[in-house]
Amino acid sequence: MLPQAGPLRWRNVVDTPAVLIDLDVVERNIRRCQEQCDKLGVTVRPHIKTHKLPLLAHAQLAAGAVGITAQKIGEAEVMADAGIDDILITYNIVGERKLGRLRRLADRCRLSVVADSASVIEGLARAFANARSEIGVLVECDTGMQRCGVLTPEEALKLARLISDTPGLRFAGVMTYPAPGQGNAASEWLDDAARLIREAGIETQTVSGGGTPDLYAMKRHASLTEYRPGSYIYNDRSLVAAGACGVEDCALTVLTTVISSPARGRTIVDAGTKVLTSDLFGMSGYGMVLERADCSVISLNEEHGRIEYASEQAPVVGELLRIVPNHACVVSNMVDSVHLVRGEYYVRAEPVAARGQIT
Amino acid sequence: MLPQAGPLRWRNVVDTPAVLIDLDVVERNIRRCQEQCDKLGVTVRPHIKTHKLPLLAHAQLAAGAVGITAQKIGEAEVMADAGIDDILITYNIVGERKLGRLRRLADRCRLSVVADSASVIEGLARAFANARSEIGVLVECDTGMQRCGVLTPEEALKLARLISDTPGLRFAGVMTYPAPGQGNAASEWLDDAARLIREAGIETQTVSGGGTPDLYAMKRHASLTEYRPGSYIYNDRSLVAAGACGVEDCALTVLTTVISSPARGRTIVDAGTKVLTSDLFGMSGYGMVLERADCSVISLNEEHGRIEYASEQAPVVGELLRIVPNHACVVSNMVDSVHLVRGEYYVRAEPVAARGQIT
Repeated sequence: MLPQAGPLRWRNVVDTPAVLIDLDVVERNIRRCQEQCDKLGVTVRPHIKTHKLPLLAHAQLAAGAVGITAQKIGEAEVMADAGIDDILITYNIVGERKLGRLRRLADRCRLSVVADSASVIEGLARAFANARSEIGVLVECDTGMQRCGVLTPEEALKLARLISDTPGLRFAGVMTYPAPGQGNAASEWLDDAARLIREAGIETQTVSGGGTPDLYAMKRHASLTEYRPGSYIYNDRSLVAAGACGVEDCALTVLTTVISSPARGRTIVDAGTKVLTSDLFGMSGYGMVLERADCSVISLNEEHGRIEYASEQAPVVGELLRIVPNHACVVSNMVDSVHLVRGEYYVRAEPVAARGQIT
Repeated sequence: MLPQAGPLRWRNVVDTPAVLIDLDVVERNIRRCQEQCDKLGVTVRPHIKTHKLPLLAHAQLAAGAVGITAQKIGEAEVMADAGIDDILITYNIVGERKLGRLRRLADRCRLSVVADSASVIEGLARAFANARSEIGVLVECDTGMQRCGVLTPEEALKLARLISDTPGLRFAGVMTYPAPGQGNAASEWLDDAARLIREAGIETQTVSGGGTPDLYAMKRHASLTEYRPGSYIYNDRSLVAAGACGVEDCALTVLTTVISSPARGRTIVDAGTKVLTSDLFGMSGYGMVLERADCSVISLNEEHGRIEYASEQAPVVGELLRIVPNHACVVSNMVDSVHLVRGEYYVRAEPVAARGQIT
């Protein structure tokens, strides 16, 4: 499905800094996730925020995903433009402009959103009262992440009732984004909520969990029907640190050039926060240098990455170094295009179609 | 020079999250910087990485700047396309592709770059050996930032000699980006280097310092001829914290909508790291909420900003809050367009023409 490599090596093609995506690793990661979810008895609805590429969304669907997840309407619009017809937006949609876009989007794909308050549901109700298409609405549950979401299964039931009773809205189930490491506990929370809602006579089609950190540590749950992992397709240094994957499973790397080795033990590369971002995820350092285990990316400015190295051998100006970033999703958002590769070989540049979609 | 506001209030025009730029504040900041540099007897060469907008680069030039500073060739190309004809790229240019672009760029503007090693100078020498246009080269000096730059004035002299002796290259002077708070010490370092180079009989046209953090704390220096501030045009929370400006001097704010107030004391807005970035600059929290002094932006995910508030009054879903970010420059790089405003009134959307220029 995904394109093959040509005869050129990326080393001779790509200018730096650049984001490389190894499709061999991507294909392996997609397969592994699908197998795991098949084993858990849940469908996969990958979050496209990690790659923001229609090409890879289609590859995920071809491997068995039932649809995709997006965070913003703009991302969903780009994916609908690319022919993807089943989209869940896991975000409270607030404001008349966005609600108008949502109504138009529902006319061209099977669309669901989430809500965690009566206020959000009222907005959806206004927008879809006389709409051509209905919209699925899941209740977002705070199972420990302390972000959005209702705080108790009882509150989830209350909102489920409100959605069920609202013309134009279809109650579609419950969802959560679990705090990393709490995927199983979060699913028990959802079990309770789903039981309560079903006992009240309300059909609860989807019980949706997610998150790559817990994907391979999940067990079967009574109610869980769907899993929404995102980062698994690329993986990153934070997931290696969490034990969720190995370095060889990291499909996204940042190719950099050494531009200065001004002092013993210190070298500067041409990737800073404008590519790697400042995301630390509780770790120290801003990435892992693949070519040299003795290197630490100790600090970043916008266009400079400062690397300290332990060995006697200083990196030479012009040398290429690849960095596995702390957090792959945010790196995709920094660049207009990524470079698809397979091993040492170049495939092509691919525009990051859903980059920068903030509304 | 800069456009005036229309009759509409931005509150009724702009969808969130959005980056607002108040041109009234911008004009005041440009004027204040120019006056300070006039007083110090140095020319201004603003760094456009903060705004990435030809419109504001032209406003800086109209106010008296002698040219602009850019960090990457891509930024310089965008500015040259917009008719700006004096550009300094404060970055080691390494690699044949980039050197080719640099040579072509030198044909259409007065262009300078920096170098901190013989290796970088050799690359420039190859590229400009038979070029139509010469290029100015300044020696980058590490005066305490511990990033790029030669470590001693003696090394600076050595590279100045090498540049002077190389056909196609014009030795243009010395430059530094000082560690914040060390602007005056850095200028003394440059004084020493400039004296050494002049004593060797090499003309040293430009002695260039920079940085907004020290701009208003600078004193006159024997050799300093040029100052390259960037952030002063927008300012941000880090500069307020450093005492370099007041909150009322911050021209860039991020407009957000409250999307959830799920628990007492906690509210969620629709701006996360995809707009505000993870830059902390040693502070705690990710921004300052203008409308509510009791609010702290305690953490961000990609699309969520988590705010804790002390008062009894919970922000309401749909409410607009403006956030002064920790670091304005990186916020400009996250969005395809910013919204120009004057006070409460809307001017227009402006594409961030030099956004995402990483090479």
